[in-house]
Formats: sequence, C-alpha cells, structure tokens
Amino acid sequence: MHEQIREYSEKIRNKLIEIRRDIHKHPEAGWTEFRTSTIIAEYLDELGYEITVGRDIVSENDRLGVSDEKYIDELFNEVSKDFVDSRYLHKMEGGFTGVVGDMRKGKDRTIAMRFDIDALKIKESGDNISTEKGFSSVKGNLMHACGHDAHIAIGLGVSEIIRSINDDLDCNIKLIFQPAEEGVRGAYAMVKAGILDDVDYLLGIHVTNDLKAGEVECGLGGYFATTKFDAEIIGNPAHSGGTPELGNNSLLAAATAVLNMHSIPRHSKGITRINVGMLSAGTDRNVIPDNAKLNIETRGENSELDEYMLNAARRILINSAEMYGCTVDIKIMGKSDTSYSSKNLTEYCEKVIDENIDLKLCRNIPSLGSEDIAMMMNKVQDDGGKAIVIGVGSNPGFKSRPHTGEFAIDEECIHKTSGLLSSLVYEIAKIDSV
Amino acid sequence: MHEQIREYSEKIRNKLIEIRRDIHKHPEAGWTEFRTSTIIAEYLDELGYEITVGRDIVSENDRLGVSDEKYIDELFNEVSKDFVDSRYLHKMEGGFTGVVGDMRKGKDRTIAMRFDIDALKIKESGDNISTEKGFSSVKGNLMHACGHDAHIAIGLGVSEIIRSINDDLDCNIKLIFQPAEEGVRGAYAMVKAGILDDVDYLLGIHVTNDLKAGEVECGLGGYFATTKFDAEIIGNPAHSGGTPELGNNSLLAAATAVLNMHSIPRHSKGITRINVGMLSAGTDRNVIPDNAKLNIETRGENSELDEYMLNAARRILINSAEMYGCTVDIKIMGKSDTSYSSKNLTEYCEKVIDENIDLKLCRNIPSLGSEDIAMMMNKVQDDGGKAIVIGVGSNPGFKSRPHTGEFAIDEECIHKTSGLLSSLVYEIAKIDSV
Amino acid sequence: MHEQIREYSEKIRNKLIEIRRDIHKHPEAGWTEFRTSTIIAEYLDELGYEITVGRDIVSENDRLGVSDEKYIDELFNEVSKDFVDSRYLHKMEGGFTGVVGDMRKGKDRTIAMRFDIDALKIKESGDNISTEKGFSSVKGNLMHACGHDAHIAIGLGVSEIIRSINDDLDCNIKLIFQPAEEGVRGAYAMVKAGILDDVDYLLGIHVTNDLKAGEVECGLGGYFATTKFDAEIIGNPAHSGGTPELGNNSLLAAATAVLNMHSIPRHSKGITRINVGMLSAGTDRNVIPDNAKLNIETRGENSELDEYMLNAARRILINSAEMYGCTVDIKIMGKSDTSYSSKNLTEYCEKVIDENIDLKLCRNIPSLGSEDIAMMMNKVQDDGGKAIVIGVGSNPGFKSRPHTGEFAIDEECIHKTSGLLSSLVYEIAKIDSV
Amino acid sequence: MHEQIREYSEKIRNKLIEIRRDIHKHPEAGWTEFRTSTIIAEYLDELGYEITVGRDIVSENDRLGVSDEKYIDELFNEVSKDFVDSRYLHKMEGGFTGVVGDMRKGKDRTIAMRFDIDALKIKESGDNISTEKGFSSVKGNLMHACGHDAHIAIGLGVSEIIRSINDDLDCNIKLIFQPAEEGVRGAYAMVKAGILDDVDYLLGIHVTNDLKAGEVECGLGGYFATTKFDAEIIGNPAHSGGTPELGNNSLLAAATAVLNMHSIPRHSKGITRINVGMLSAGTDRNVIPDNAKLNIETRGENSELDEYMLNAARRILINSAEMYGCTVDIKIMGKSDTSYSSKNLTEYCEKVIDENIDLKLCRNIPSLGSEDIAMMMNKVQDDGGKAIVIGVGSNPGFKSRPHTGEFAIDEECIHKTSGLLSSLVYEIAKIDSV
Repeated sequence: MHEQIREYSEKIRNKLIEIRRDIHKHPEAGWTEFRTSTIIAEYLDELGYEITVGRDIVSENDRLGVSDEKYIDELFNEVSKDFVDSRYLHKMEGGFTGVVGDMRKGKDRTIAMRFDIDALKIKESGDNISTEKGFSSVKGNLMHACGHDAHIAIGLGVSEIIRSINDDLDCNIKLIFQPAEEGVRGAYAMVKAGILDDVDYLLGIHVTNDLKAGEVECGLGGYFATTKFDAEIIGNPAHSGGTPELGNNSLLAAATAVLNMHSIPRHSKGITRINVGMLSAGTDRNVIPDNAKLNIETRGENSELDEYMLNAARRILINSAEMYGCTVDIKIMGKSDTSYSSKNLTEYCEKVIDENIDLKLCRNIPSLGSEDIAMMMNKVQDDGGKAIVIGVGSNPGFKSRPHTGEFAIDEECIHKTSGLLSSLVYEIAKIDSV
Repeated sequence: MHEQIREYSEKIRNKLIEIRRDIHKHPEAGWTEFRTSTIIAEYLDELGYEITVGRDIVSENDRLGVSDEKYIDELFNEVSKDFVDSRYLHKMEGGFTGVVGDMRKGKDRTIAMRFDIDALKIKESGDNISTEKGFSSVKGNLMHACGHDAHIAIGLGVSEIIRSINDDLDCNIKLIFQPAEEGVRGAYAMVKAGILDDVDYLLGIHVTNDLKAGEVECGLGGYFATTKFDAEIIGNPAHSGGTPELGNNSLLAAATAVLNMHSIPRHSKGITRINVGMLSAGTDRNVIPDNAKLNIETRGENSELDEYMLNAARRILINSAEMYGCTVDIKIMGKSDTSYSSKNLTEYCEKVIDENIDLKLCRNIPSLGSEDIAMMMNKVQDDGGKAIVIGVGSNPGFKSRPHTGEFAIDEECIHKTSGLLSSLVYEIAKIDSV
Repeated sequence: MHEQIREYSEKIRNKLIEIRRDIHKHPEAGWTEFRTSTIIAEYLDELGYEITVGRDIVSENDRLGVSDEKYIDELFNEVSKDFVDSRYLHKMEGGFTGVVGDMRKGKDRTIAMRFDIDALKIKESGDNISTEKGFSSVKGNLMHACGHDAHIAIGLGVSEIIRSINDDLDCNIKLIFQPAEEGVRGAYAMVKAGILDDVDYLLGIHVTNDLKAGEVECGLGGYFATTKFDAEIIGNPAHSGGTPELGNNSLLAAATAVLNMHSIPRHSKGITRINVGMLSAGTDRNVIPDNAKLNIETRGENSELDEYMLNAARRILINSAEMYGCTVDIKIMGKSDTSYSSKNLTEYCEKVIDENIDLKLCRNIPSLGSEDIAMMMNKVQDDGGKAIVIGVGSNPGFKSRPHTGEFAIDEECIHKTSGLLSSLVYEIAKIDSV
Repeated sequence: MHEQIREYSEKIRNKLIEIRRDIHKHPEAGWTEFRTSTIIAEYLDELGYEITVGRDIVSENDRLGVSDEKYIDELFNEVSKDFVDSRYLHKMEGGFTGVVGDMRKGKDRTIAMRFDIDALKIKESGDNISTEKGFSSVKGNLMHACGHDAHIAIGLGVSEIIRSINDDLDCNIKLIFQPAEEGVRGAYAMVKAGILDDVDYLLGIHVTNDLKAGEVECGLGGYFATTKFDAEIIGNPAHSGGTPELGNNSLLAAATAVLNMHSIPRHSKGITRINVGMLSAGTDRNVIPDNAKLNIETRGENSELDEYMLNAARRILINSAEMYGCTVDIKIMGKSDTSYSSKNLTEYCEKVIDENIDLKLCRNIPSLGSEDIAMMMNKVQDDGGKAIVIGVGSNPGFKSRPHTGEFAIDEECIHKTSGLLSSLVYEIAKIDSV
C-alpha cells in the first residue's frame, strides 16, 4: 500500500506544484481567502468530498483579528467576478473563509488533517525564485512567505490519494483548510464552530527550511500560549504651544504603558514574554497627540502564564490611560494555547515512517513560536483523542527565512508530504483503540 | 510720636535680643511650640493684653501637617514640667499652639500684626555665631533657621511699645503669633477659627538677609499658591527571587508616578511647579518593595493653577498605584495661596517711612517662595480690608542663607522693626477710611 | 494719496481674488512652491520689478526641513511642463523656491514687505466654500489652510499699487515672497542669503479670523522661540518570543525619552514648552521594534529658553537610546526666534491708519504661536532698522479655524490689505530718520 | 562506628545547645563576627586543630559588602575588652573574621565542611521561644534569624566527634567557618584566599523548617547566580519653586532607572530576575533631590544570565544618570554563582544514610534562593573534586519562617547533624577514588 501511495504521489507531483504556484501568485490575507477557499472547495467537491463552508465552520463571534468590513467586502466583490458560478463563494461573504471536506463512511474513527491557507502582509522581494519562474505575487503587499501555499497543495494532494485508497481505509476522513493562521486568529473560531467534535486523530504539518526535502520531524509542539491584542488610547488634541493643558496626551499614556508592561514581574512558574511590536501616535508636531495605537502580544509557557501577562498588561493600559484622562479600547486580535503532540502517536508515526517510508527522521530543537493548531490539538486531546504536528523539510538549498520577502521552498516537499500523510492515515486507521 | 517710639525701641533693644536668644536656644517645630507659646502668652498677659489660645484660635480639623499624637504628647508633657502654673499651656494640649493678644478699645478699626513662631528640622552647624554667644539650639535636630525667633522678639517688642502709646492710638490692636508656618500649615486653621474676622488692616514682616539691617522693602507678595502633600503607596511584599509575581511593587508604582507627575503639561495661564522632594521605598534588597512614601509639593502662579497641578498629580498617583494592584493614601500637609500686598497701603507705608523713619527703602525682586500669611492676607482683603508684608534687612555681614545650619542674623533688626511696626500702626490708625 | 490708493485697490479687487483662488486650487508645500514662485516671478517681472530667485535668495545649507530630493525633483519636473518658457523656474530646481522683487531707485531707505507662500499638508474638507465656487485644492493632501494664498494675492496687489504711485515714493521697495513658513523652515535661509542686509523697514501681515475684514491689529509679536526637530532611534530587531534579548528595543528607548522630555524642569526665567507630536515605531507585533521616529518641538519665551529645552531634550534622547544599545539621529527641521514689533513703528502705523484709512484698529491677546518672520524682524532690528507685523481681519462669518480642512476667509481682506500696506509704505517713506 | 558517633553526638547534645544559645544571644553581622570567630578559634585550638584566621583565609580586596571602617573598629574594640588574651582576635582587626581549623595528617584526601556564622539585621520579636529561655538577642537590631547559630554549634560538635574518631579516619579534615554569608558576601574572599585549593570533598548544611528534625534532604543546589549591588545617583539640589532648572534631579534619574531595569528583556536561555529592593532619595520637600540610593539585586539561572542582567542594569543606571546631568556610583555588595551538588556524591550520601543512620530521607522542591557556598562548590568541582549541600530539618512545630523576627528552630537538629556529618565524612574517606 505504501508503495502504491508513493507512486500516486509522484504521478501528481507536477500538478501539485502548479497548484502551489497559482496560489502563490494570488496570495490572500487572513479572513479574505475568498479565491483560495473557492478553489479548494471546488477541487474537493469534484473528488466527492462533502463540503462545508461559511458560518457552519467558522463561529462568527469567535473570529479574531478580522479586518475592516468594507475592506473585506471590496475583496469579496473582486473575487466574485471570477467565480460567478461557485456554489460556495457566496457563503463566505463577510469574511467566513476556510473549507472543511469530509469523506464520511459511518466508521467509528475520524482522522482529520489541518492545512492553513492565508498569506502574510509582506512584499515579495524581486530576486526570489518565483520571479524567474513567473509565479511571483501579483498583490504588492501580500506574499505566501510562510509556506501555506505549499500546505494547500499538500492538502489537495492528500485529498486525491486518500480517494484513491478509500476502499482500504477503515476510517472517516476530514480535511480542514483553516483561514487566518497568521496572528493565530482562525483556529479558535473553527473549534468553536464544532468542526473537531467528531475527530479522534488530528494531523498537522508545517514546512521548515531547517530541514531538507526528504527529512521530517515528528511530534512538534511546546508552542507558547499567546494573546495578540491591540490597544487604542484615545485622548484629546490641543495646540502644544497655546494651550497644552487642554489636551489629554495619549502618547504620554502610551509611553507609560509601554515601560510598565515591560516591567511586569517575571513569573516563578515559567517563561513569560511581552512585546509592544508597534506604536503609532499623534497627528502633527504641534498638536498634543490625541490617539495612540499599540500592537501587543503576550506569551507564556502555558495559558495560565499568558493570562497572567495579559491581565497585568490590561491593568497597566487602563490605568495609564486614566492617568491622562484618556480612555483605552483593547481588542483581542489573536489567541493560541500551548500544546504538545501526543507522545504515543508520535512514536507510532515514527515507527511507520521508519519501517515503510523513504524519509529521514530528524530531531530539532523546539521552536519558541506560536501556532494556533494548538487550539485544535488541545480540543482533540481534551476529548480523549490524539494529535500530532510534523515538520517537513523544505530547504531550497540557500538561506531563506520564513516571514521575509526572500522566502522560498524546495517544491519536492509537496507531493512527498501528501504521500506521507496518506501513509500515516492508512496506518493510524488500523490502530486498535484510540 | 515717631521719635518717642524710636527711643522706646532702643530702650528695650537688649531685652528683645535676650528674648530672641532664649527662643533660639529652645526651638520648637510646628504644632509643638508649647514653651514658645506659653512664654508669649504670659508676656502679653502681663502687659494687659487679652489672651486667647488653644482651639479658639486654631480650628481643630483645619490643622495641616500635624505630627503623630504620641510625639506631640511627649513634648507637651516635657514642657508642662517647667510651666506648672501657667493658665494657658493646658489649653494647648494636643498641638493647639499659637497665641492671639488683643487690645480692644471699642474702636471701629482693628489693626492686626502677624508673627510666625515655629522652628525648622535643621541641625545647627557648630561654627555659627550662636555657639560663640552660647545660645545655640539645645535640640539636636531643630533650629530657628528662618528667623522666626527674631519675629517673636519683634512682636513682643511691638506689644510693649504699643502699650506705651496706647492712649494715642485710635484703633484696636491684635497681635497674632502663628504656629506651623514652615510647610505652610498653620495659617489656614487660624483663618478658619475666625481670628481675622474683625481685622481691617493686617501687617506682616519677614527678616531677609538680602538687605542689611536698616533697610526695608514694603509690599512683598506674589507668593506661589502651593500645596504640600504626602503620598504613601501600599503594595505587597514577596521574595524577589522566589515568587516575584506575588508582590505588588510599590516602588514601580512610585517611579511611574514620579516621572508622570513631572510630565504634567505646562499650563498656558501661568507658572506651575511640582517637586517630589523625597521618596523612600522598600525594606530589603531581596524583597519586592511593599511601601513607598513620597513628599510632594505643587505650586502655581495662582490657586487655580496650583489646584490644576494637585488634581493632575492625584490622578497620576491613584492610577500608578492601581496599575500595580497597590493603593495610595494622599494626605494634605500644608497649603497656601498666592497673595499681594494692597497697593494703596504699600504706598502709604512707604510714605510714612520716607517722611518719618530712619530706614532705607529698597526694592528687590519678588521671591518665588510661598508664605502662608497669604491665607490671612486674602481673608482680610476679601472682607474689604488691606494687608501688607514688609521685608526687614537682617544681613549679618557674611553669606548666610535661610534654611541652612549656618543661618544667622544681625540682631539690630529686632528693635528697629518693633519700632517700625509701631510707627506704621500709629499712622495707619489715622487713615480716613479703610 | 490714500484715497488714490484705496481706489486703485478696489479696481484690482476681483483680479486679486482670482489670483488667490488659482493659488488656492494649486497648493504647494514648503520648498516645492515651484508653480507658485514662477507665477509670482513672472507677475513682478512684467511690472518692472528686478527679480531674484534660487540660491541667491535662499542659502543652500541653511534650509531647514527640506523633503526627500527625489520627491522634490518629481514635483519640479511636473511643474516644468507647464512653464517651459519661464526664465526663473530652472533656478529653483532642487527646492530653491521663493521670490524677491526689488524696485531700486538709489534711495537711502529700503522698505521691505514679506509674504509667505507655502501650503499645509491638510486635506480640504468637502463642505468648504471653495467647493461651491470651484477652486478647491486639486492636490488631495495639500491645502492653503493658513491663508498664505491670500498673502500672495495681497503681495501682488501691493506690487501693482506701489508701481502706480512709484514716482511719489521716496524709498526703494523690496517684496519678499518666502517659501516654507509652515514649520518655520524658510526665513532662516533667506536671512542667511543676505536679502535683508539693505532693509530699513520690514512689514509683515497675517490674516486672522479673530477679526472681521476691515479690522486690523498693529504690532503683533511675542512669538515663541521654537525649534522643530526629528529624532530617529535605531536599534536591532529580534523575534519577541524566541530571542528577545538579542534585540535593541527602540520603542522602550523612545518611551523613556518621551516621558523624560516632558519631565524637563520648568524654567524660572519664563515660559517653556515641549511636545512629541508624533511617534511611530516598530514593524510587526512579534518583532522587537528596531526603529522609532519622533517629531518634536520645543518652545521658549525667548531663544535662550528654547535652547535650554532643546539641549535637555537632546541629552535625554541620546541617553535613552544608549540605555538600550540604540543610536539616535537628531535633525533640526525648523527654527524660529521670539520677536516683537518695533514700538515706535507700531505707534506710527496706528496713527496713519487712524487718520487716513477706513479700517478699524483692534487689540487682541498676543498669540502663543510661532512665526518665522521673527528671524527677519530680528535681523532688521539688530541692524538698527524697524519691523512690524499687522494682523488683518478675515473672518468669513462662521467659525473657521486655521490649520483645519474647513478653513475659509472673507476675501474682502485681500485688496483692503494691499491698499493698507501701500498707504503705510507711503507714509513710512516720509519718516524723518530711521 | 556509626553507632559510636551517634552516642558521642548525644553525649554533647546539651553542650551544643548551650553554645548555640550563647551565639544566638550575641549575634554579629557579616565582617564583624569578632566574638563569634574568637570563640570558634579558641574552641578548635583546644581540640588540637591547626587554626588560621585573618587575611590568610580572607582575601582583603575580594571582600564584598564591607561596612564602614569606623563602625567595624568600634565593634572590634568592644569585643577586644572581653578577649584580651586571645591569640587570634587581633588578626581579625579591620573585619577579617571567620576561622579555618585543619586536622592535617598527610593523607591524600582532604574533606572540608563549611559553616556560615553571621547574623541578620532583623529585630527579634518578643514572643519568640528565646525570650522564654532567656537567650534572646542582646543586640537590638541583630538576630540569628537564619539558623547560622545552629550551624556554628553543629560545626563545633563535628570538631569534637571527628577528633574522637580521628585515628579511624583516612583523610585530612578542614572545618571552614565562613563570615558574611547573608548578602552572599563572604565565600568569594575565602575562595580567593586559597583555602579550598587542597579540598577534594566539600560538605555544607543548612537548617530548614520545611522539614522536621530527623528529616534530611541530600543534594541541594540549583541556586540562582546573583549579584547584589548598590547605586548612588548624585545630582545637584535647587529650590523647587525658585530655580528648578538649576537642579540635577537624581530622583527622576532613579525613577527612570527603576522602570527601565525592570524592563530588561526576558532572556531566552533561562530564568532571570531583577529587584530594586530599596530606594531612598531627596532631602526636603521643596528641594530638587540631589541624591538617590538604590539597593539592587540581579539573579540568573546561571552566571552568564546574571551577568546579562547586571550589564544591562549598569548601562541603564549610567544613562539614566547622564540624562539628568547626574553621575552614578555602582558598588558590588555581594555575588554568588549557581551550583549543583555532585550527583555521584549525593547518591553515595543517600546510600550511607539509608543504610546506617536513623534519619529520614526527603525530597523537596529546589529553592530559588541564592547561597554563596555555591562559589566554594564550584571551586572544588572545577578542581575535580565533589561537593554536596544537605538540608537538615529544624521545624519547631509551628510556623516560623527564616528572615523574620519570629524565626525559631527545633534544637534537636544540632547534635543529630553533627553526628550525620561525622558519619558521612567517615564513609567518604573510604571511597575508592575522588
């Protein structure tokens, strides 16, 4: 069976690369992946998957970090022109992107795979490999600089292979294409919509340039719990020479908040972090600044520690604003939890790879980043299921860091990973008990 | 008459110097001037003045910056031993010092003079003139370093001269010996007790080493309105290595308050000042500081501006404390207002001096300090009366700044000023209408 | 003669309004007034004035707050297309705008008038009077929101009237059209170029909506000395979750600088101000901010006090940056001085108006803003000459504040002021001695 | 042999308790343990140990946190009166306290034990057990509130037992009585004096109220590396109302330093801490504070991290001072390192106890405090030797925290620990190789 899977994956290698390049050329930011989601939905539909989109897979009030409504509508209308006949696109109106494709067979066991689909607000640099091959981003300030384009292609590859071995699979399959992973904004709303309620096993993947194509690492995890939030301090302007006392200085409030948020006591129970990544205040040199916007994030070794940081930051922001007669508006823009791959499942997958698949198993240091698949992993594990994240090598042969305009990958990783996931699903379906 | 006054003043010159030296040797801080007040009361009593002391001249709840009760009682008990027979001392128990001596004759016009009587918490330096003459402070940490000892002697000199010319005086006389001027704490409680309700003219004096003995300046004023207040920020301690997150850091709150209080916007309507003169926080190097004490003062070109600073500071303190889960206790320790000598009265006095008295009229720059006679001046002026403060030269012939352990005066200023005030009162009594 | 001037001014009333509206429609920011300056130069040229432009009237290295070279060149090239034949425009290339027009007659006395010509970076609001009449700004983010369009028209009106009475004028005339007044950037470079070296009298005007058209106020002044400067704090980025210790946090440095700059001690010698009007820092929520830009201004009752603030701010910025291992780059963007209208000249002008001109003399409170004509006034006064600024009423009949998108004026003020200046020049030329 | 040791320890039980109570009654702070050291030296001398004291065991320039010379001399002179005949005391003059007692027998192996001897600046509370028994501290502000009095008695008990089994011991013995452990000030100077150069095994103990008498825990460690330092910021005073601009405000500098030191970035390589435990600034409410004193400590999971914190703090202090034209003086007051008990030695000791000694082995969580025996442990381990710290239960049966005035111990722990150490030394001497 694993040989059959491998052969199938090689057959679709070029097609998957084409898909990845098309997605790369048309990047869409979180909650606006209208084109991307429509293409995925149509693709899965054609293969016979049961498609769910829109509010049924994204809980409206649990979406985090959603952009301005008008901006979302503009993008929706633009994409609508190209997909007039789509049965799915209209359900995404208002920013309800993402797709869930189910292959339900009445089995006891459901195995889900999750692929994230959004791009980053990064300008692609001119000297990238994509320029040469003609698939550079056509959107000036957007780029798939984190490999989610490859994740989509991998997911669609899986959808084909799975269908080809469907009769031999003793489980239901659920393919989750998640919007708005960047800024850890999307997973929460999907969990809240209940799409993981019936899942026993969850598999996630992420390309990594720390490994070469052909190398994999099982059992990623240890992500920081994190909260992304924006604060807007609102004061009153005044002429700085004429009547400074009439102003309510939002910048002094913000400066006070910045210093004091970084002074939140270190916690004895584990690692904590805080960062005010951006601050923008004021309108003119000779006007008391009446508005200051801060983009902030907290992190913690676990969610209790992240909450500790968040609560302390909130108290500081509120009091810094009041100190100057200002008000402050705090808005959660993203949230993720810490999580770990299930130990038994990790060992099982390593054994499967070792015995059956032509990939090299590696061990890397755990990243100290955050990934909102953690929210899904925790949901599945809390329900008694198991979850795993696998890092798949994509090093293009030169230095190429994610989240930069120069990011590139070795496209060989795509079909290989489609095959890997299919093989793992096949074996996991055979495990005696959850 | 002026010649008669001058002769009398020279006759009592030595006696007044002795009084000043005795007071200098036994300095008493604000609200504990038990010995000083008793001596004054007995002196005036003997001359036939009607004496009022205690709660009748000091409104209990309007006293500012009163020390610890126990401390006051200790000092009271100590002084009590030396004045067992005094009819007045017992009324001062609890910190109700100060004396008012009235010479009421049923006249329409009442002229008051005010003399402040408290010493400073300053250690007298060994090389002072007082060491040589044997009248150095016997109290280690207290010293008459602002000349109030001379003011008392001047006031008692006035009481004698006035009595000697009483039949020629067409007015009632009120001699006010005010406690707790340092830190602008005492005047307010006397005003509130109503002792200025019947006053038409108020005269105040202050020695100044910017002028030589024999030089005077009429019409001082333009004092800053000011508020003296203490803030105590109360948090919670914790071991700084073991569990820093359990602490509520009063020092971080205090540091935030200090920086932000100095950042209060400059006011377009006039001069403002703020100073955190002292800060003391913490108990040990390895403990999160659970207590921070701040001694603060605000000033303003007028009381509206002082209030502006005070309110802004209060808001900053409260929010700085809350920011760290601390509380703050703010206590007003002193308060004074801005005030100006009445213009007509100043010109009248200058004319009297110019024509009748052997003193040189000078003009200096206005000080930017604060003096709580301002509270009394404003009360009298608000009631339609007039007020004046006169600076009297006391330069001892070498550099000698007030509020330092080296402060010294030329004692010639004492009897001269007693004479000056008596002459002025005599002439002011003759002014046609208030 | 005053009647003749008045009649002439009314004759050109409509023409001047047209000029003002054309300028209003095509606003240009400081150092890029290419179209504006060319129009002025051609206008004066035609009337027979001797024209000087470019580096001869603007000292290259003394220009403050000059924009990016590329941006200036773009605007220059655009304007060049419309004025191919101009003898003057090419000399302005690189941002050397402004015009000086001389009517030299070998007289001993030279009377100069100054008009500022630049627009503001403000978006004109749609409901303005200019929309209705069809002369709204065609440049999205630029607007004559401070009346300099009217000043230009007034100046050109003066140039005509002066020429018509030239034979009766016993003086040389110099018309100065100054670039880059906003942000007090242009006057200094003109003074340094020497254009005021031969000036005995300098007259300036400014429209004010505090007065109605027909009302004037002589002798404005008391402007704050001010320095406008930008600071860029440069640190190093780092991932805020992964390796925060590798960053050099420019935002923490900036927050420290902001708080401490506002804490610079109030100065006993007079009014001081400081404002950080804008702060922009950071690149992304999860990156230690490596760059912070601050737009700052200091002010003082005189230039010594402004220097005090500037030096203190500079020290704070440098040490705040070093504290975090960052560097700081400080750039002066504008500078002006305090100045006062010459008292005798003010009284003389008031007398001329009172006796000869149908305008109402008013007295307002002195503004606490800054105006860089101060640099020119001080230059003339230091050389023994006299200077005056006159406020001319322009209230449009509804609330309309300068430096807002709603700013509007009563255009009646234009020809009236052209007449007023011409009359004053005529009389000043007759004063016996400078 | 272990039975013999146990019996001997019980024989001296009461004597050791008497010693402990005598030391408790006469506590001495670090670097002034003149009486304590003299008693120890005489005691060991009498038992035949070779005594070294003074500069030979304490490297003069490596002493940290030494008090004022005059204060030390006063205490020395006072103690001198009671020990006129001592051969050792005079060598301690100037603050060179501590004692090393050697039993050298020409063996290859040297086993050292370390006991710390200083008291804390804490006032003993009246309701303590010591009051009842009549051995409360006779020094108002000093108390053995950390059990070092017991440590001394334990050490002297060891010295007796060891001597009684000396012929059976196949090793040299070194007893180290270390001064100034509180504030981690003394160990460094002893290491630098070379007293550990010949040591193969080092044993340390500390009483702990987390365990009952009879319970022990082997292998303490994981102490934080730490630096204790004081900073004095020196500015210039000025009258806060009159001429605030003439001051250099040390309190504003200190507040800036406090906030920014707490903002030092969290380090990705491990735990870090900082605390400003005490701040005291200013002289009077109306004077710009010219002096601010800060007591600070940094900690790190290892000494690299502690250095990171220290260097960042230093940079912040220097720049905060310069920002206000102040200077800063930074003085290291104590320093310790992280360290861990040797694993093999710990297991060996546990086995010895388990098999031979009537004490209960416990496991507690590692403390996050600091202990300067770490400096000695690291020295021995770096030289190829082994080291261990053992916690010995001393819970008195009620809540009684160290470093408080209520601290008390169960004195049963004393002779038991003397026996324990003797037994361990006996067995360690028999280990095949170091």
